[in-house]
This record gives sequence, C-alpha cells and structure tokens, in this order.
Amino acid sequence: MKLIAGHTDITMSEPIVILNKDDCLEMGIGPMDRVRVTAQETMVSTIIVADASVMKGHVIMSPYVMQRVGAEDGEIIDVEYSPMPESVRSIRAKINGKILSHEEIDSIVKDIMDGNLSDKEIIAFVSSFNVNNSDLSEVAYLTRSMAETGRMVDLGVRPVFDFHSLGGVPGNKITPIVVSIVASEGIVIPKMSSRAVSSACGTSDYVDTFCDVEMDTESLIKAVKEVSGVFTCGNMDYAPVGRKIIRAERPMGIDPRPTMMASIMSKKVAIGTTHLLVDIPMGAGSKISDMRTAEGFAKDLRDLGTLLGIHIECAVSIADQPIGRMIGPILEARECIKVLEDGDGDPTVVDKACGMAGIILEMAGEKDGMKKATEILRSGRAHRKFLEIVKIQNGDPGLRSDDLVPGRFVKDVHAKRTGFVQYIDNPSIVAIAKGAGAPADTGAGIELLHKIGDHVEAGDVLFRIYAENQAKLDRAVQSARSRRPMSVAAAEVDIPDGGMIVKRIPSKAMLDLIRFRND
Amino acid sequence: MKLIAGHTDITMSEPIVILNKDDCLEMGIGPMDRVRVTAQETMVSTIIVADASVMKGHVIMSPYVMQRVGAEDGEIIDVEYSPMPESVRSIRAKINGKILSHEEIDSIVKDIMDGNLSDKEIIAFVSSFNVNNSDLSEVAYLTRSMAETGRMVDLGVRPVFDFHSLGGVPGNKITPIVVSIVASEGIVIPKMSSRAVSSACGTSDYVDTFCDVEMDTESLIKAVKEVSGVFTCGNMDYAPVGRKIIRAERPMGIDPRPTMMASIMSKKVAIGTTHLLVDIPMGAGSKISDMRTAEGFAKDLRDLGTLLGIHIECAVSIADQPIGRMIGPILEARECIKVLEDGDGDPTVVDKACGMAGIILEMAGEKDGMKKATEILRSGRAHRKFLEIVKIQNGDPGLRSDDLVPGRFVKDVHAKRTGFVQYIDNPSIVAIAKGAGAPADTGAGIELLHKIGDHVEAGDVLFRIYAENQAKLDRAVQSARSRRPMSVAAAEVDIPDGGMIVKRIPSKAMLDLIRFRND
Repeated sequence: MKLIAGHTDITMSEPIVILNKDDCLEMGIGPMDRVRVTAQETMVSTIIVADASVMKGHVIMSPYVMQRVGAEDGEIIDVEYSPMPESVRSIRAKINGKILSHEEIDSIVKDIMDGNLSDKEIIAFVSSFNVNNSDLSEVAYLTRSMAETGRMVDLGVRPVFDFHSLGGVPGNKITPIVVSIVASEGIVIPKMSSRAVSSACGTSDYVDTFCDVEMDTESLIKAVKEVSGVFTCGNMDYAPVGRKIIRAERPMGIDPRPTMMASIMSKKVAIGTTHLLVDIPMGAGSKISDMRTAEGFAKDLRDLGTLLGIHIECAVSIADQPIGRMIGPILEARECIKVLEDGDGDPTVVDKACGMAGIILEMAGEKDGMKKATEILRSGRAHRKFLEIVKIQNGDPGLRSDDLVPGRFVKDVHAKRTGFVQYIDNPSIVAIAKGAGAPADTGAGIELLHKIGDHVEAGDVLFRIYAENQAKLDRAVQSARSRRPMSVAAAEVDIPDGGMIVKRIPSKAMLDLIRFRND
Repeated sequence: MKLIAGHTDITMSEPIVILNKDDCLEMGIGPMDRVRVTAQETMVSTIIVADASVMKGHVIMSPYVMQRVGAEDGEIIDVEYSPMPESVRSIRAKINGKILSHEEIDSIVKDIMDGNLSDKEIIAFVSSFNVNNSDLSEVAYLTRSMAETGRMVDLGVRPVFDFHSLGGVPGNKITPIVVSIVASEGIVIPKMSSRAVSSACGTSDYVDTFCDVEMDTESLIKAVKEVSGVFTCGNMDYAPVGRKIIRAERPMGIDPRPTMMASIMSKKVAIGTTHLLVDIPMGAGSKISDMRTAEGFAKDLRDLGTLLGIHIECAVSIADQPIGRMIGPILEARECIKVLEDGDGDPTVVDKACGMAGIILEMAGEKDGMKKATEILRSGRAHRKFLEIVKIQNGDPGLRSDDLVPGRFVKDVHAKRTGFVQYIDNPSIVAIAKGAGAPADTGAGIELLHKIGDHVEAGDVLFRIYAENQAKLDRAVQSARSRRPMSVAAAEVDIPDGGMIVKRIPSKAMLDLIRFRND
C-alpha cells in the first residue's frame, strides 16, 4: 500500500511504524504484525502499531526507520505485510532443543543482518542458544555465517597471528606492546581492537590518542605487508551482524558464551587468522572469577578453533587489580608508550605483555618465547617497530610519551591509615574513571600511586583522579567516596611470584606450525 | 517525581510511558530504563521513552498503563526510577546455564506477576529455560511458584482426579463424557478446561452452549461435594501468572515444553489434584507426531508428577483425523450429549472417552476400567450424572441433544471421485471451521459425513459446512477450495484395530493408591 511518510520523534527500543486503523484493516494486519517499508533505497520489516490518531493514507515512523529506509516527510512510500520469516521457525526449533543445521543458522544470521528479526526474536535466539542447548559445531556454523555478513580478507600471507583479551580488567594496555614485539620478528599480526563498551577505556580508545584507529581494508593489507602488525579498530567491514546482535541483547545485559565466542571468532575468521592467543583475565570483579570456569572456556575456545581451522591457545592472567598504574585513554597511552621507550616499567604491564608476546613467539616456532620477547622489548626493537606502526596509522613517528598530557583537574585520594594495600576493587576504579569522564574525555582517568601489597602511611596518596573539568572531577570524587576502591589494613599481603600468566592452555595442533613456517 | 498524567492512543507491545527529556535528565534516566508509575491504586514498572514533544512536568502513557495504574488525564501521579529487578540477574544466570534455586525461580515468577519484567525478559526466560537447559526440579519449583500466584484450593477430599488433553486434534469432545463416567463412581474430578487458543473449539467453548462454564471457587467446592465432578473453565483465580507468560510468548509463537508443563501442572497443583491422566494426541498435524516424542514427554510429565506429589499417567491417543464427526461449539455439544443419551456413537468418541475414563477408574483401584466405563456409559448412569453436573452449572436438567441447533447456512462438499477416504487434514478442517466463524459463532463448524477408510462414490457428500451467515459460509467454502481437507483415492485403507489409545504410560506409584482409598 502506498502511504505518505511522516515522522515522530519518539525513541523506541524497536523499529516501529504507526498506521491508521482502516489502512491496517485493508491490509489485513494488526498490532505486532510485520511490514516491509520501502522508500528510496532501503527496505526493512518493522513492528506495526495501529492507531486512530494517524490519518488514513499516512504512515508515521520513528527517526530510526525514516533514516534506514531513506524516507522524507511527505514522501509517498510503500508499506506491505511481511510474513514471519522462516528463520523464526528455526529459532523456535532451537528453543525446543533442536540442533540447527548450517543452513538454518545461516538464515537466522542473514535475517538479523537484513533487519527481518525483531529484538525479541534475537533475544529469544541468543537466550536459547546457550551453553547447554548448543554444540560447538553450531557455534562454528554461527561463526562462519557471522563472518560472511561482512568482508572476508585474504592478506596473502600465512600464518596470520592474532591476540584477543576477554577484557574485564582495567588498565590492560598491553596490546600495542604485544603487537610491536611480535611484529619485530616479522610475524603478521593484524590486531583489531574495540572501544570501551562498559569499561573506562578500550584499546582503541587509548590508541586513538596517538594515531588513527580506523583503517580501510586496502590500507590494512598494505600495512601488514610493510610493517607486519597494526593495532586498529574493528569496523563494520568485518562480521557486522555482531553489532546488531549486541544492540539487541545489551539492554538485557546478556552476552551468553556461545554467541559471544562466535562474535569474537567471526572477526578472526573474516581477517583470515590462522593462530590466535586469547587472554583470559581471571579474578574477583572480572568476567571470569575462577580457574575451573577459565579452563572450561579455554577448552571450548580451543575446540571451536579446531572446527574453524584456527590454532587457539589461551593464557589465564591475573586480574585481581588493574594492569599497570594508569586508567583512562591518555594516561594508558602514556604508560604504554613509556614501557616501550624504557624497555621496562610496572611489572604487571611488562610481565603480562612479554608473557603474551612470548607465547605467540612460541606458537610461531620460537623456543624460549618470553625470554625472546623481553629481549626485543629491552633492546628498543619493539619501540622502533611501534613507531613504524604508529606512522603507518598516520601518527607522529617522533611520538614521545610526554607528548600526551592528561586532564589538568586533579584530586588526590589519601590513605586514612597506615598499613598494606589489601585490595583494589576493579569495578570501583572503572566507575570513578567513568565518573571523571573516561573514555569520552580522553584526559580523564586514574593514576594508582600504590598497588596491592604496598606499604602506605596514613596520609599518603593512594590514587589520583584526573578530569577535564571541575564538575566531572567532583562527580568522580563523589563516586570514590561512596565506594571502597582500595582498602588498607595492618596485615602484610602475600604476593605469589610466578608472573602474570598463571596458566597456559596450549593448542592441540602446535606441531602443524612447522608446516606453515615452511610454506 | 510528580508529573501530570496524559494519555496516548498508541497501542504498544510493551507498557510504555513517555517523558520530557529534561525530566529524564533530572531523574537520571534514559530510554530503556524502568520507572515505577504510581497513581490511585496500582503501581507498575514500565519502559521509558524520552521525548522532546512531551511538555516538561508531564507523563504520557498508553491506555494500558493508564488503566493499570488507575490514572486519569490531568491527574498528578508519581514516576520514579526503578532499578532492574534482582530476578533479571537470575534470568541471565539461567541463560548462562545455571541451575536456579526455588528462591530465584520464585522471584522471577513474582516479578512476572507484578509486571516488573518486560516481555523481552519473559521471552529470554522462557527461551533459555528449555529442555536442554532446565531440569525437572526447576520445572517443579516453577510449577509451585506459578500455582502460588493465585488461589490454592483444598477441596477437603482425597484423592482428587483430573484429566488433561494436550490438544491439537479437532472434535475432541470427550471431556464431559469422561467426567460423567468417572463422577458416576463417586470419584472426585474437578475438571477445568479452557477455550480455544488457536483451534476451532475448546472444551469450554462447546460446554458453554449448554451450561455455565464460569464457576467461583465456593461453588466449585460445593459442586464437587454434591456431584463429584464438574466441567468448568479455568479462570484467573488459579495460577494467573500463566496467562502473563503466554501473553508475552504468543506473538513469538513459542511455547517450550518446560514452561508449558509448569503452566499445565500449576493449575492442577492449585486445585489440589492428586491423580492426573494426560491425553497425548499423536498424529500428523497434531502437536506430537511420533511415539518417541510422545514417550519422552510422558516420561518427563510422570517424573515431574513424582516431584510434585501427583500421580500422573499418560495415554497416547490416535489423532490422525478429528475425533467423532462434528467440529464447532454447538455441533460438538450435540455429538457429545448424543453419545451420553444413546450410550453409544461414533467409535472414535466412545472408544476414546471410555478408554480414558477406564484408565482413571483403574488409577482409582478398579480392575477392568474400560469395561466398567463402557457399562457406565451404556447403562445411562453417565448420562444421569452428566445432567446432574449440567444442573449444578446452571444448565437445563432436561437438556436434550436436539435442543442444540447449528447455524442454518449450510454448504455440502462432495467427493470428486469414487474410492476410499485416505486422509483428513486436521489443520485444514480447523481452518475451514474457523473460516465459518467458529468458535465465536457457536453455530458454525463442520460435520464429517465420512472418515478415513470409508468408501465413497463420486458426488457423495464428504463434509458439510455450517455457518450463521452467508458471508462467513462463503469464506469457509473459499477456504475449503484452497486447501485439501480430505483426499479420496482408489486404494483401500488399512485401519488398525485396537482402539483409540495406542499406548498407556502408567504412573510410578500406582500402589500408593490403596492408601488414599483407605484414608
């Protein structure tokens, strides 16, 4: 039916159009039915709402739908009944315990991509496709289908390494260090990171303070050829359906493991990864709190890798306090670059970065990876490689850590008693840094003057809050007062030595590597 | 925050209020957040939509929310931020594979009942709580929690029998016959049926044509004392949360087994059932198509019964064609009453009713139940009991089947060839009857002149469509032409003998019965 388009400024959680009751009757549709809305260029199916307050012959849309179909107010557009897509049947079958075929999963993914499934249907799919109701072959199908919604890149080299952290620990600024060490050895590592979702600073947030994070595929291929590694930001070129799934599930606060694994791996498949190291931060307050869960997750990932033809190793790392001392975009960039400049720094950063880089070097055939990684960092080779990558990402090749200046509104938080730092609460640190404006205000964040086990006197500065204006600084201070970000008590703290990586869970197929190296 | 109430006539799939952007900022809320809306009497939490087109100090609500909170236009009401309920955490945990405690399930059910969970959250719960991701103890907890959202009745007698058909087969008019036979023996059977959801006629739809189906709890208790059985309609007194769950999941077309079982059993728990017979119709086009699925379902139901302290038996019945010859409220009522009057009738009705009643008699200690049931029917005792129950449900105690007159607009559908009826398509029969106006037009429906295996000559009437007006009759005829409700071919049809009940799956604890009988 041809109708005159008009807009409403009501923001809805689902794409919606409002039609006159009589037009609905004529089309034989009612509330909750789907319609296909066709304007200039695009076409989407949306939820219908019948309403007497809309004139006959008119269709009122939310700004989101207006934009997606490319309609203008007053334009005549086409609205037609859209039957329930076949993929809804597959979702129902999944809810009822059926193992889905590749074709069924593919049609679900395509319909999510094309906007044919409502948020409710996506939520039903993600909720039913849970650990007990999906098997790894289905997750592998899902991964491939998701990858195929975007560009599939052939970098023209093998092997292709990648590094992924599950996140959940603040201050985790090791990615550019790991990439620089690994790429120094000529190993290809096209690392695509992301911005913060709920944290105070994602990898792309701090990298963005000193070079471009957006990179088109042609530049990426060229960069990898020239300097072996990059630290860019994943974009909508690769497995774009992942963002649509996240958009639907985020309001519910859900991110079940099978779809989460598929979402991570789909981007690796899209970029042609052959070898992947996954960092699993473990600790109170992080996503994974105990070794049993970490090992179960690692095993699933590794087996999924086998199905996808990707060698996956996992490394469980300590996440009971922030990595390093800085949290927030500019502060983290400074600390990261300083470690590269000095070849040394806070032991949690250096040990974790060299440990992860070392495992990758071993996956690539090196004998004593960590020793080698540490040498590359100490010798300045990693720093030189870092600046090469910065340059290729349009950053200043003469970049110095001191060039990066945090917010000038500063407030110190002091110890109330003498004793030892017992505990640092990661969620509180994140909340305070976000209160100060991070990650949008790049200068906002926190500097930890002390970490777990440090002896402090009453009145010593425990941590410093940075902000870009007084109001946000006050908000962060308020947030710090209402929480317990750091606790100090008399007892000495027993810090286990043995480094940041507490367990390495190797890939099944390390030996295949030799073949790749000889290709 | 105190705001002036106003209404919008936009119909939404979720309860929604629209607030001014500045008011939202002041309350620190945004789109997708929840608020508690408090007016005269009630209080609900709803999804927020920030909108510049609403004046500051005002709140615009859908008619549903207006009515639920009892607000009038222009009234000053209270709107406050409502944090995400704890039960959402439990739903997330379930999605991630956790086995939920009774407390967690109870809080989910309470929050659904109180309107604290959105449809999306209910869908996520139902989708994740699927066969592979829930265990029977959780289903038992869910059943009890659902029962406790409504009235819990003690009929003051034990045992309390019940009979439940999973449905999906048209013309299944056996309930009043089963109840009348069983109650003739003084066995308590407070049967609560339902109206059609997607079928052409539910039990309550045809019972409603000859007596009241609504009955309050006090009358129910009195009726059971006086005449042992009733055939009423379940109402919102018992496990009312079930309807809220169905309201959320119906647009998705989902009804996963664990929540479906809990929904069925919660009403039985509420009425104090101790012994239950479940009819599982099996056949192409019905809900359950093969014996393996039927047996799996029966086993789950029986084990759930054990956890709930209810003795459950299941009987798998043939559902490859309609039961009896009539479909539609008045037509089914006629056929049902005629069988009771004559003590005989179409073998599918008589055999199924006596078979089911026989199993119940055996559950109650009788030796040869089916023989006994058939005697009770043949002797006229069941008919006398039926009229007693009709009377107590405010029907005419002198009721005759001939009193019930179907619609006077009639159209015959003829055989195009000579041969044997091979197949009757249940979904087509239901669609034609619904096209004719059933169940709302009580006189509408179908009479089957022939059933599977019958020899017919070309030109013979295969079935007759009844309607209450010409337009609907034409619609039904149109529907019959576009489908293939009955097929006739040369080959003789092999009809297996052995009755309508193909498999009986007895309860684990038949022996306990003796104890009940001696109480």
